[in-house]
Amino acid sequence: MIDFVLLIVIAICIIALGLAAILTRNLLSQDEGTPKMREVADAIRVGAEAFIKRQYSTIAVLAIVSAVVIFAIYYFTGQQAIALATAAAFIVGAACSAVAGVVAMWIAVRTNIRTASAAQTSDGKALDFSFRGGAISGLIITSMSLLGVSLTYIALGADPTHTPFVIIGFAFGASFVALFAQLGGGIYTKAADVGADIVGKVEAGIPEDDVRNPATIADLVGDNVGDCAGRGADLFESTAAENIGAMILGVALFPIFGVNGILFPIVMCSLGLLASMIGILSVKGVDGADPMDAMNRGYYITAIISAFFLFGGVYYLLGATPGWMYFVLAGLVGIALSVAFLRVTLYYTDHHYRPVQDIADSSETGAGTNIIMGFSVGLETTAVPAILIGVSLLLSYWCGTMTGIPQGGLYGTAVATIGMLMVCAYVLTMDTFGPIADNAGGIVEMSQAPDEVRHRMDKLDAAGNTTKALTKGYAIGSASLAVFLLFNAYMADIAKLTGKAFEVVNLANVNVFVGALIGAMLVFLFASLAIRAVSKTAQYVIEEVRIQFKDPGIMAGTKKPDYARVIDITTQGALKNMILPGALVIIFPIIIGVTMKYEALAGFLMVATITGILMALILNNSGGAWDNAKKYIETGVHGGKKSEAHKAAVIGDTVGDPFKDTAGPSLHVLIKLLATLTLVLAPLFI
Amino acid sequence: MIDFVLLIVIAICIIALGLAAILTRNLLSQDEGTPKMREVADAIRVGAEAFIKRQYSTIAVLAIVSAVVIFAIYYFTGQQAIALATAAAFIVGAACSAVAGVVAMWIAVRTNIRTASAAQTSDGKALDFSFRGGAISGLIITSMSLLGVSLTYIALGADPTHTPFVIIGFAFGASFVALFAQLGGGIYTKAADVGADIVGKVEAGIPEDDVRNPATIADLVGDNVGDCAGRGADLFESTAAENIGAMILGVALFPIFGVNGILFPIVMCSLGLLASMIGILSVKGVDGADPMDAMNRGYYITAIISAFFLFGGVYYLLGATPGWMYFVLAGLVGIALSVAFLRVTLYYTDHHYRPVQDIADSSETGAGTNIIMGFSVGLETTAVPAILIGVSLLLSYWCGTMTGIPQGGLYGTAVATIGMLMVCAYVLTMDTFGPIADNAGGIVEMSQAPDEVRHRMDKLDAAGNTTKALTKGYAIGSASLAVFLLFNAYMADIAKLTGKAFEVVNLANVNVFVGALIGAMLVFLFASLAIRAVSKTAQYVIEEVRIQFKDPGIMAGTKKPDYARVIDITTQGALKNMILPGALVIIFPIIIGVTMKYEALAGFLMVATITGILMALILNNSGGAWDNAKKYIETGVHGGKKSEAHKAAVIGDTVGDPFKDTAGPSLHVLIKLLATLTLVLAPLFI
Repeated sequence: MIDFVLLIVIAICIIALGLAAILTRNLLSQDEGTPKMREVADAIRVGAEAFIKRQYSTIAVLAIVSAVVIFAIYYFTGQQAIALATAAAFIVGAACSAVAGVVAMWIAVRTNIRTASAAQTSDGKALDFSFRGGAISGLIITSMSLLGVSLTYIALGADPTHTPFVIIGFAFGASFVALFAQLGGGIYTKAADVGADIVGKVEAGIPEDDVRNPATIADLVGDNVGDCAGRGADLFESTAAENIGAMILGVALFPIFGVNGILFPIVMCSLGLLASMIGILSVKGVDGADPMDAMNRGYYITAIISAFFLFGGVYYLLGATPGWMYFVLAGLVGIALSVAFLRVTLYYTDHHYRPVQDIADSSETGAGTNIIMGFSVGLETTAVPAILIGVSLLLSYWCGTMTGIPQGGLYGTAVATIGMLMVCAYVLTMDTFGPIADNAGGIVEMSQAPDEVRHRMDKLDAAGNTTKALTKGYAIGSASLAVFLLFNAYMADIAKLTGKAFEVVNLANVNVFVGALIGAMLVFLFASLAIRAVSKTAQYVIEEVRIQFKDPGIMAGTKKPDYARVIDITTQGALKNMILPGALVIIFPIIIGVTMKYEALAGFLMVATITGILMALILNNSGGAWDNAKKYIETGVHGGKKSEAHKAAVIGDTVGDPFKDTAGPSLHVLIKLLATLTLVLAPLFI
Repeated sequence: MIDFVLLIVIAICIIALGLAAILTRNLLSQDEGTPKMREVADAIRVGAEAFIKRQYSTIAVLAIVSAVVIFAIYYFTGQQAIALATAAAFIVGAACSAVAGVVAMWIAVRTNIRTASAAQTSDGKALDFSFRGGAISGLIITSMSLLGVSLTYIALGADPTHTPFVIIGFAFGASFVALFAQLGGGIYTKAADVGADIVGKVEAGIPEDDVRNPATIADLVGDNVGDCAGRGADLFESTAAENIGAMILGVALFPIFGVNGILFPIVMCSLGLLASMIGILSVKGVDGADPMDAMNRGYYITAIISAFFLFGGVYYLLGATPGWMYFVLAGLVGIALSVAFLRVTLYYTDHHYRPVQDIADSSETGAGTNIIMGFSVGLETTAVPAILIGVSLLLSYWCGTMTGIPQGGLYGTAVATIGMLMVCAYVLTMDTFGPIADNAGGIVEMSQAPDEVRHRMDKLDAAGNTTKALTKGYAIGSASLAVFLLFNAYMADIAKLTGKAFEVVNLANVNVFVGALIGAMLVFLFASLAIRAVSKTAQYVIEEVRIQFKDPGIMAGTKKPDYARVIDITTQGALKNMILPGALVIIFPIIIGVTMKYEALAGFLMVATITGILMALILNNSGGAWDNAKKYIETGVHGGKKSEAHKAAVIGDTVGDPFKDTAGPSLHVLIKLLATLTLVLAPLFI
């Protein structure tokens, strides 16, 4: 018997997929621009599809091996009953995540050209197209995640107190794929970008996205495979992991709420998806207006509707406790946190505020001071978010306690996380809009379209940069709340396996302290390797571009550079260099857990998470601030383009690239991967 | 009745002070070089003394206010009996730390000129002088720390089970002064350095230490006030804090070892001081030889003698347990860790190995890739040290457990820490040698001495750079061990105050988790502000130098630049900009402790410490690696000086400056300050 509320979830997902289908059909019927545009767009599409195909083939092999290992671990640790189910859930989660990534990329490479074409006549229309392209991804990814969890839950027997512990395989599968997708895509996109910039802008002195630069197409491909596919997979697993974690916590409340407490997370997320649909449909591009206005309005609409749904959902599902209003409050804390995170990120990465202006100022005295200031700003950006996360956790925990039910505090933090993730589909839409606009701008530039078209796209591109920074802030904020409940799910899982309570992770115990130290270290080591991977891959790109530039025909613009060769080199480099960091973060926790057991591993997990959150903030925000300091100087301040300050700012931007688009976003995935990995492999650590 | 072993400590300290006096007398009788050299050296001495005077006046005010606050806290939380004693111990600790810093600076500004003079004829003699100058500081600082703790212990009644809890004030006083000394000195030295480099080397294209650059003297002053006085205060408080922490742990073992277990740490440190004296006297400079050979030999001699003393000391003091050999093993783990840390630091910062070479390679493609690679190397350097610390903690804990006494494991880690700190005086000697050699090199350069003299000094200067990097590695390694025992001292202190056991710091508790998150964040925020302070102060320097360079007489070399003005500006800037970061790290833990109480504060403290250790490694080692990559290129590889690769490497070096000489070393102090602060203010947090 399938629970009635599950039918609501499935229905909303089907509506969302239907809306996505309508939007897709509508979009594909639009004009594809000039032949020159199509030529560029085709090259991007072919490159992106080739990369994704090779990347996911690699990931598929890794995933199948892992599934076998998971099966073996369960089988040989006395968990034969659920060995196959867990391994199967892992494969389904991995497959869904892969599909989410592919869909995001598929839509993006088809929307970019249509956006570029629309920009020939109207910037409002260009916004509409690129935003709807983003919406298609957002809707499909979110509903895939919800459908995946719901159907797996049903397939595994829908036993409220048992099934949540089995579908953790789904979350781990999603994280597993997301890690490699984000890492590989992130390395690809930045290696191509850094390579193109260093030889093109710095050495040869030609503008960005110049047709003569053989790395430009690879750079544009990168936007699709790194930003679209990567963040798609990231937020897919966020929703999946958080839903499953909250379901596990719901098991403890089964005596009070019954199955409602367990299904609460997915029902609320589906209502959030409904709210996002309304928000998405409310966005209308207006010629001449700031695109951020329309998108911000849509965001606030989504948030407000979500708040109402939250009220209704809590009343309907958790109304069994007289203190249910406190759960509503906890959820509102989550929604408020999502808004606060966006504002803080905006402050640190927008040139209207002090931090970016400071970086631009310090560019006057050269690259050295630009880097020092940018790094200092990056470190500073941890302060307010950490306090916000801390206050939100304490507040939502307090709200939960006030409901008067046992373990209510913990469930309060879960409700806050759910509140934050309700707007997920809308945020994903804004996020995917960014690289689409960026790509369309590249197409316009490379097809040598008239100046007015470029200006239209520049505005959209700038908005895209802002939304990309904002959504990274959102992703890390929601991850920080989600992991706290995932820790507790891990502890509940261990308690279930050992049959005794596991409520204390004693940092004063020497094993736990050492575990924590190694956990924090792993984050830095991972970031090091992710950054190094970009550097290594960029070296291959740089060498190839230099060789091609030696051909006088290419620099004169009479001969077409060999784009495909650079794409191929970048693809190979990215796939090769993603293996080591990826493997490391899977092997390390297993070693710690097997040798020092579950409590030390919990210390490892928690401190790795804290460090990971803060480090991701540092990397994302410093990168965003450097980028925008450069763009700010390009508006004419501090001497504008071609000034010494601009040269310094370009170096800062180059440094920030692997920070904000490779290491930072990969850390989002890392912290959730660690949480789901420890959950799934728990039988090994007891 | 003063215990017999305390007399040994005092006797060894007096011998060390006597040796320091002899070395000083000998050194001061040496030739002071050419009038030109004396002119430069006088300017440095006057500048350094002026800065130290103003800096310590500021610190004195802050310390007196803090002493009053401490008194009030104790008085009004029912601890009237020890309020005055704790506040007095704080003042004594602060005063001793200040004296240690002043002594280090006083010797350094008198040794530099004599080293420069000796370099006119012999590089062996130059090494002897500079190394002995370092030794004077090392001996005085270490014996001051031991004498301070011993005499305060006696003055406070020498009650074995009570006094250790009162002299924590001494350790906090020492940390307090060390923080501001290191921070202010670190800001000063790097602001002057960055300012001098940016306008001199980058903008005007004149060499380092050129007499025409008005910031050169300030730069040389900085070596004395930042490196000498700063690290002097740092290691002074390391010994003090560690000794006191270990004494507190010894209280728990009183039934077994009596007063011996409590006095064990200071006795062992004094024996280590004796070993260091032998090591120091064994160092003899040889013309034409690598100075590192002589210093390394001396280090190994010190380490081996310490190992023998360790054996004897454990047998004599802790022989009451049949398993005493395991304590010897634990101590050997500490000595081995100190050697291992030096080797790892060498690997990461010496150009003979892969990391520095990678950075040099990546300079070929510009400053962007140089920075990316350097930062990646910095992040990577956390891996092996973290594992080494983890293994040492586990091993020494295991050794302690094997002795079979209750709480033996914890005491095992204390013995390891003591083992590591036995070589402290020798390490301090090597450390202070670095800035003295650097300064002497500057004097030789500025007095336009003949080329052969410069070459002699260059070799010594290079060795000084290596020892500076190594001793930073040692400082952070010993701090990491020390803090684990300081945590436990804090927990013992809280247990004593509340009258109930405090053995669990539960990271799964939401308060503790939030405390931990804020603790980790504080490290990043502090690093941000420390780096920013350099940047801000450097801006003042840059502006002033630019103004002076507009005078054609100065650039032509016919008019003397106004060195004093730059010194004055740097002094003011450094003192102004050290207040905010310094105040923050004192206020934050108090807020957390007062609002969320002692367990959350313990989480804060532990995770701040983990993050602080790793962040210090990142900052120190990346800075050292960038510096040496630049020096490596200057040897002629990748096009040598004036190549594009060199320009890129200079930018990397500039970025690394505030990392390795301001923020990194200040973090060493920070983590110990947090530990001693929480200990002393414990009554507030219950």
